[in-house]
Amino acid sequence: MSLNIRVILVEPLYEGNVGSVARAMKNFGFTDLAIVNPCKIGGNARAMASHAKDVLKNASTYTSLKDAIEDDVNIVIGTTGITGSKYNEHIRLPAFTPRQLKEKMNGVNAKIAILFGREDNGFTNDELKMCDIILSIPTSNDYPVMNLSHAVGVVLYEMSSIEAGDYPIAERFDQELLIDHIRNVLDNIDYPEHKLDKTLLMIRRICGRAKLTPREVQTLRGILRTIQYKLGLL
Amino acid sequence: MSLNIRVILVEPLYEGNVGSVARAMKNFGFTDLAIVNPCKIGGNARAMASHAKDVLKNASTYTSLKDAIEDDVNIVIGTTGITGSKYNEHIRLPAFTPRQLKEKMNGVNAKIAILFGREDNGFTNDELKMCDIILSIPTSNDYPVMNLSHAVGVVLYEMSSIEAGDYPIAERFDQELLIDHIRNVLDNIDYPEHKLDKTLLMIRRICGRAKLTPREVQTLRGILRTIQYKLGLL
Repeated sequence: MSLNIRVILVEPLYEGNVGSVARAMKNFGFTDLAIVNPCKIGGNARAMASHAKDVLKNASTYTSLKDAIEDDVNIVIGTTGITGSKYNEHIRLPAFTPRQLKEKMNGVNAKIAILFGREDNGFTNDELKMCDIILSIPTSNDYPVMNLSHAVGVVLYEMSSIEAGDYPIAERFDQELLIDHIRNVLDNIDYPEHKLDKTLLMIRRICGRAKLTPREVQTLRGILRTIQYKLGLL
Repeated sequence: MSLNIRVILVEPLYEGNVGSVARAMKNFGFTDLAIVNPCKIGGNARAMASHAKDVLKNASTYTSLKDAIEDDVNIVIGTTGITGSKYNEHIRLPAFTPRQLKEKMNGVNAKIAILFGREDNGFTNDELKMCDIILSIPTSNDYPVMNLSHAVGVVLYEMSSIEAGDYPIAERFDQELLIDHIRNVLDNIDYPEHKLDKTLLMIRRICGRAKLTPREVQTLRGILRTIQYKLGLL
């Protein structure tokens, strides 16, 4: 059994790349392709898809990344070429290699969305903030920027050998409730406003890496509720 | 240090693929490209090579595979999509996965030639017989045939021994302080005694899986201190 993986392309610019992505997906046994605000998908895309035209044809399109992630996705993974030690560090760290991600996801029972950004500009910061886990393919410093479809190919090569199991991951909906709850408690304790977003993103990434189970989310929320009660707020 | 690897394309048909191969090579830190009886290498190849035009330009061309392998190559590896248990079995078996090959080559000091065949017909039997090792990327039975440059990308991803980074993990001492701090806060909020140990163990497991960084531990403890302050305890 392999993982349930959705590939999400965010505003791809070149139809040839989209076709090549479809082919790479089918090569590794994946078919669920979602595209946010796609470029025109025409003959060149179909030519590059080769025998994976069905993946291309069945791709779902969205006008927002939020919609593409859908309610039944448990973990959102963003693929970035820039792991930046300087540039917006907290948004892009820590980054896993495909190998590390594979090891992390072994035995999991979950639907995973793997996001790939624009060929020229990758992701916006807001898009990166939606990611529970950051993925980065180790490349040469001389030329780190991979072709979009090659990046998809390498990531799916690793993902295709994951052994899915029965380790349950909390629903996305409940994970978002937990994050909101933490935000509330930070508000309750007058956590410094200028640190709030950064800290919440850090906590989101911690939860993503920890692969919280439904029970863990409930227990953590129980603690938060008790804190609020003791603060005289409930 | 990465392996000394020569990529040899045998009679590639499409210049776009050759350009994409050059790019994938440079992405993973390899530059030695040899081509046996190449197709025309023109503008489309250069466009696909993007910032790896140097690899393309410096590629050496040969009229026979034997010449391309050269005297200083220690090991010849042929990449095939057909591991065929029936068709010419002895020529194509045993086949290693890229992962297995990587493990096999760890610690080796050698020049390795990795051969990739024609887009349509792969290798001739005579060419396959020149290979010391057969390499095959595990793909879906539904559509096993990868694009040439994608196959190169996946193989070189494994071959590049680049280690992803310097992900820092918090000291054990500080992680224990964090757990103690959480225990204190749970005491502070009169968290039910009979649940305490179980919950703390759960939290420890979460932290362990999340592999907290030093900065993350400090930030979490800052939150705990603020909670205690707001509870009137500090």
